[in-house]
Amino acid sequence: MTQFPQLDGFHGAPGLVRLIGHRGARGVMPENTIEGFEFTVRSGVVALEFDVVLTRDHIPVVTHNHHLLNAATRGTDGKWLQGEELKVSALPLSQLQSYDVGGLDGRTVYGQRFPDQVFMSNVRVPTLGDLLDMALKPQGAEMLFLLEMKSDPETAHIPEMTERLVSEVVKAVRVRGLEQRTVLHSFDWNLLEICGRIAPDMPRSFLTIMPKNADDPGEDSSKSVAPDFASMDVPVSQAVVEAGGHMWCPHYLDVTPEVVSQAHELGLLVTTWTVNEVDDLHRMVDAGVDGIVTDYPGRAQRVLLERGLVWNEGPDQMVAE
Amino acid sequence: MTQFPQLDGFHGAPGLVRLIGHRGARGVMPENTIEGFEFTVRSGVVALEFDVVLTRDHIPVVTHNHHLLNAATRGTDGKWLQGEELKVSALPLSQLQSYDVGGLDGRTVYGQRFPDQVFMSNVRVPTLGDLLDMALKPQGAEMLFLLEMKSDPETAHIPEMTERLVSEVVKAVRVRGLEQRTVLHSFDWNLLEICGRIAPDMPRSFLTIMPKNADDPGEDSSKSVAPDFASMDVPVSQAVVEAGGHMWCPHYLDVTPEVVSQAHELGLLVTTWTVNEVDDLHRMVDAGVDGIVTDYPGRAQRVLLERGLVWNEGPDQMVAE
Repeated sequence: MTQFPQLDGFHGAPGLVRLIGHRGARGVMPENTIEGFEFTVRSGVVALEFDVVLTRDHIPVVTHNHHLLNAATRGTDGKWLQGEELKVSALPLSQLQSYDVGGLDGRTVYGQRFPDQVFMSNVRVPTLGDLLDMALKPQGAEMLFLLEMKSDPETAHIPEMTERLVSEVVKAVRVRGLEQRTVLHSFDWNLLEICGRIAPDMPRSFLTIMPKNADDPGEDSSKSVAPDFASMDVPVSQAVVEAGGHMWCPHYLDVTPEVVSQAHELGLLVTTWTVNEVDDLHRMVDAGVDGIVTDYPGRAQRVLLERGLVWNEGPDQMVAE
Repeated sequence: MTQFPQLDGFHGAPGLVRLIGHRGARGVMPENTIEGFEFTVRSGVVALEFDVVLTRDHIPVVTHNHHLLNAATRGTDGKWLQGEELKVSALPLSQLQSYDVGGLDGRTVYGQRFPDQVFMSNVRVPTLGDLLDMALKPQGAEMLFLLEMKSDPETAHIPEMTERLVSEVVKAVRVRGLEQRTVLHSFDWNLLEICGRIAPDMPRSFLTIMPKNADDPGEDSSKSVAPDFASMDVPVSQAVVEAGGHMWCPHYLDVTPEVVSQAHELGLLVTTWTVNEVDDLHRMVDAGVDGIVTDYPGRAQRVLLERGLVWNEGPDQMVAE
């Protein structure tokens, strides 16, 4: 793994389980916002998982779905967006950033999933550049990026569209010299193949969710761009290795000690998502994963500490005795 | 109330219930730390309730108990303090600030009360000056202080000791010109009488908890410095008015709609503490309090918004529609 030093930061070890902030810290702060990323890094969780799509003017921005969630988006009048949800790829950056994404509408199913999330105003969808710039400041010196690229199911069959997304993302990383702090991450194995071709200087992470596990409410489905796992004749981890992957990111309901050790034998890192409940956090630690993606970094830290585990190396990492 | 403009920021109104961050945001961030106060203010909850005691060298510092909680304090070796808890008034500031107060020991009863609190390292007990300085920066322009002074039960009978605490606190506020953003707050009515004498330029808030409601684990008892409410022949709110109070801060289990409206008729503001559960938050809103002190600002914001209420005035306050 020494080819890619950033993978050290996702590597578990005896006494060490990595934590990765999901969209920052969605349980506490508005997701995929600079405000949330700053909170997470300041909490000592320096690896961030987040989502990138392109605007109409081909600017990579950090937001999860291809459409702005009405449940999380207010207009310039301060009111929740209504009706058909706006497609990010149809909006120029200037319009996208006129919306306020600092809070959740608690009357919606999505809003009710995160009842402790703070409610802020005048918060904007960040560009990928805004987020990457954090890593160039002293307080971001340890930051690592698990950078998910979202293939649009409507255009995933057009290679040029996917290549454009990858090339804009790779350009934003390279222009800042952050190739050794970034892992390229997707559900779309075609997209990851393109990454291997145009960005062999960065490792690749393969997201998976088995068909039996449903998507959570309020999330764009990724299944339409993912392979048909049910018809594979090898274990998924084997398929990830054959596709050139360095990391495997299974949904936590798909994780067992057996699949983790199988993946480890194949030389893969195993990072699981999105693990928010205390019992599930314990189960993932028991299964031997390298890293855990969570909306609740504080909760996950505390679970690790109670087991005598840490999430970072280094002199600042104080261990409960 | 125009005599004290800061009271406007604690005043409820139709559609408006004030939120006050308890020790910052103890449910999320280490209590009584600059890191926690910054989180709370950034979340849009600009009124902070916190606790002040004096070090051996008479420096007002922000920490709750007269003794450092072993469950929240690590030494320079990174290990939890053990044995008899250290008394803050016996430590010079330099020694006090050698300890790390960035996390909780989850094996303790106190630690288990806040299982989502993030675990940070190299976090120090702030001086009162450090906290007040935040209000002089642009991002602290709206901050308000509900500044609790903790009388030491061991020395509360010595007027000079109490006066020293008050005068050091008042000096720190005045030297920064923050008299109009501070409310002086205590369980100790003798201390509040001293405040009225030496700081008549600041309003006073009277904390109460009825004898039937036990102290929570890990908190210094304040009952020994508080009046004997059971033997009073007038309602507590009446006694607060007679003692010169501007605000009454009853424990939330002591709050009913009747006592709130009685206090309002007497011209008092009513701010209740420490309200963390959704049901209790609703009950306090129903009771008609002006403000709610909470360890979970995000949760409290969300409860208000679901009822069509807000916690701040001003153009940035977006109302769910």
